[in-house]
Amino acid sequence: MNLVAAPMHLSSASATFEADFAARLHWSADQDAAIEQRVADILADVRARGDAALLEYTARFDGLNAPSVAALELTQAELQAAFHAIAAPQREALLAAAARVRSYHEAQKKACGESWSYRDADGSLLGQKVTPLDRVGIYVPGGKAAYPSSVLMNAIPAHVAGVGEIIMVVPTPGGEKNPLVLAAAYVAGVTRAFTLGGAQAVAALAYGTQTVPKVDKITGPGNAYVASAKKHVFGTVGIDMIAGPSEILVLADGSTPPDWVAMDLFSQAEHDELAQAILLCPDAAYIDAVQDAMDRLLPTMPRAEIIAKSLSGRGALIHTRSMEEACELSNRIAPEHLEIASHEPHRWEPLLKHAGAIFLGAYTSESLGDYCAGPNHVLPTSGTARFSSPLGVYDFQKRSSLIEVSEAGAQVLGPIAATLAYGEGLQAHAQAAQLRLKQR
Amino acid sequence: MNLVAAPMHLSSASATFEADFAARLHWSADQDAAIEQRVADILADVRARGDAALLEYTARFDGLNAPSVAALELTQAELQAAFHAIAAPQREALLAAAARVRSYHEAQKKACGESWSYRDADGSLLGQKVTPLDRVGIYVPGGKAAYPSSVLMNAIPAHVAGVGEIIMVVPTPGGEKNPLVLAAAYVAGVTRAFTLGGAQAVAALAYGTQTVPKVDKITGPGNAYVASAKKHVFGTVGIDMIAGPSEILVLADGSTPPDWVAMDLFSQAEHDELAQAILLCPDAAYIDAVQDAMDRLLPTMPRAEIIAKSLSGRGALIHTRSMEEACELSNRIAPEHLEIASHEPHRWEPLLKHAGAIFLGAYTSESLGDYCAGPNHVLPTSGTARFSSPLGVYDFQKRSSLIEVSEAGAQVLGPIAATLAYGEGLQAHAQAAQLRLKQR
Repeated sequence: MNLVAAPMHLSSASATFEADFAARLHWSADQDAAIEQRVADILADVRARGDAALLEYTARFDGLNAPSVAALELTQAELQAAFHAIAAPQREALLAAAARVRSYHEAQKKACGESWSYRDADGSLLGQKVTPLDRVGIYVPGGKAAYPSSVLMNAIPAHVAGVGEIIMVVPTPGGEKNPLVLAAAYVAGVTRAFTLGGAQAVAALAYGTQTVPKVDKITGPGNAYVASAKKHVFGTVGIDMIAGPSEILVLADGSTPPDWVAMDLFSQAEHDELAQAILLCPDAAYIDAVQDAMDRLLPTMPRAEIIAKSLSGRGALIHTRSMEEACELSNRIAPEHLEIASHEPHRWEPLLKHAGAIFLGAYTSESLGDYCAGPNHVLPTSGTARFSSPLGVYDFQKRSSLIEVSEAGAQVLGPIAATLAYGEGLQAHAQAAQLRLKQR
Repeated sequence: MNLVAAPMHLSSASATFEADFAARLHWSADQDAAIEQRVADILADVRARGDAALLEYTARFDGLNAPSVAALELTQAELQAAFHAIAAPQREALLAAAARVRSYHEAQKKACGESWSYRDADGSLLGQKVTPLDRVGIYVPGGKAAYPSSVLMNAIPAHVAGVGEIIMVVPTPGGEKNPLVLAAAYVAGVTRAFTLGGAQAVAALAYGTQTVPKVDKITGPGNAYVASAKKHVFGTVGIDMIAGPSEILVLADGSTPPDWVAMDLFSQAEHDELAQAILLCPDAAYIDAVQDAMDRLLPTMPRAEIIAKSLSGRGALIHTRSMEEACELSNRIAPEHLEIASHEPHRWEPLLKHAGAIFLGAYTSESLGDYCAGPNHVLPTSGTARFSSPLGVYDFQKRSSLIEVSEAGAQVLGPIAATLAYGEGLQAHAQAAQLRLKQR
């Protein structure tokens, strides 16, 4: 097969740009009604029959026959043994990555995850207390996309938040376990782990079964069944987000070696055929240089076929009038990963409003962030960076408002509350405030 | 009609307590399949036909015929006129409440909503930039439960976060506008307002129509249709939470006047028949005193009928062995509102893990918090305080990770990332990291 790197070439000055740009960005998050119905059935069944249903679905979908759900639990000894069995460089890389991810999330907790309060002039106390979730479930995909790094990225923030129990589920089709995933679970400090997957695993975590404990929140990526199941149980438990295909957008001023940028685009495209890699650049000659680099490098890539399909189906090299215009287009896309391949990244960063993660400067390849720079690699996709955030310690905490009104404060607030409550026709609210007044 | 205050009386020492307690707490958040289907149809129709569909549903459900959606927009002049037309004490109460809510949320933004970053030993920068959402929609219920205070509680945090545009929708059945709601919209600084409601209003905000702008997130309470619509559009836009019936739990050590506690229980029960009011107390004589107070006060309440139904259907006065046990039971309930009616509230507060808002001490009636103490009154219900938080500035912000790896940092991180990437079979990821190494 003769594979070519054929992203769409666009120019923002072209008359058809708006239409071409919109068509290239289009990705529909609409659910498949058939999947929705099957997922609803599985959820209801696991909810009603617990372990028995879980065993049946695991046998049917994963080809894994077990006498009991307890037999599907991975022991701590098994996780530890996996860690010691992998090659030393992998062990060291996992530990190094975990240490950096942990220290970043500890800084995050300090920056935005601590309780706070103050007293007003009347001596009333106002604030919020921040507490960890009791128990969370993390979904780790199995099969062809089994990523140990995802175990670290989901479990470590939960750990840093102070979550009491972290329950991992990972499908093992045919019973085949990924030793790196097990080792990562050991490194990340997962409390319990089950070889379960699909909508049935989400149901077990959301409702609990005789063997699998009910959790308070479920995080982690999965296929269309898992995504549909998470959306369905949202409200019964918390969920992190509904992930779409992965994306990278590179803003380039022409100062980064073209090979580096070409490889960064490939590193997104190699995820899957629906992944999206886009370059925005005001320098036409540089765009040609990146295309040349892609042509040269593609044949060397083991995943060339996926890369080629992703680039031709969804990739784009876009010639812009200026870096400023490139920033505006980036804001319209709100990409998951945004690289500023520029010698002056801090000039452009303030112009960028919506992105999951921003990678500044030539040395910051997305892949360094994916594995070990420290920040989380679970990021909002498909434009949802307009309203959502990277997975973080805050996803594993919740807040309770604290209010202690002083006797003096009650005298000031009582009449205000009573007036508003009467205005809403809620007389008990009003009288509860008035009962606290000294002079009535 | 002879109305009685008849909450269930329970004792934690009783042999049937666990079953009785579970039965009383039971509330099913399950969706009604018929509502789900109707909502899905409305959403699809508004998405496809825009303004035309919106006008038809507004005529059908709200009895409101308009020549265009533009005619359903409330002008700023109209909001301002409403503010000036209401009674002076109401105007002052709205302004006073808004000022306190604003200053609390400003403190919240400072405590947990600012950008942060640090440099590691290699000079690499790591952090998060916090930015406001561009445009949000707030849903304000109309009809019998039209609450101007909800306008303040939704719009002010958005404003403090720095949201560019706040679009309010409020149904006005039969064209009847609530002047207090309009005045609150003026005080809170709503950008645009439309007299739209139901699933059709949620659809308009989520997808945009010719006249109603598409928003990034939708917050605010609504009926079953609104709740279902919000859940459906989640992912296309952000949403705050799915609210169930309102609840109060009072922990009492017997030191607060029984009338105060009785009225606080009423103030929850008066919301609607499904609202839940529970008292936990180790002092049997005090429970009797609260029951006596309820018997005496109920006939004086204009909403006595709703209060009586709520108390008999879902209310409970629970005699516990100790305050410690009361705190444990409270954690199992994870109530929306939690009052510590005690002379030593700070002794019990640390034992309380899950609650939307905690009201400390005798003077802190829930109603003061509902209207004007400062904290938000949009809180997690139905036990979701186990994993979610009060509405806040953070709901109107999102985070972007910042990563700037220095040349020295790339030398340290590159080999770690490459090892892990090869382990996951992602060779382009590995090579993107390796290209940044000086010695290869």
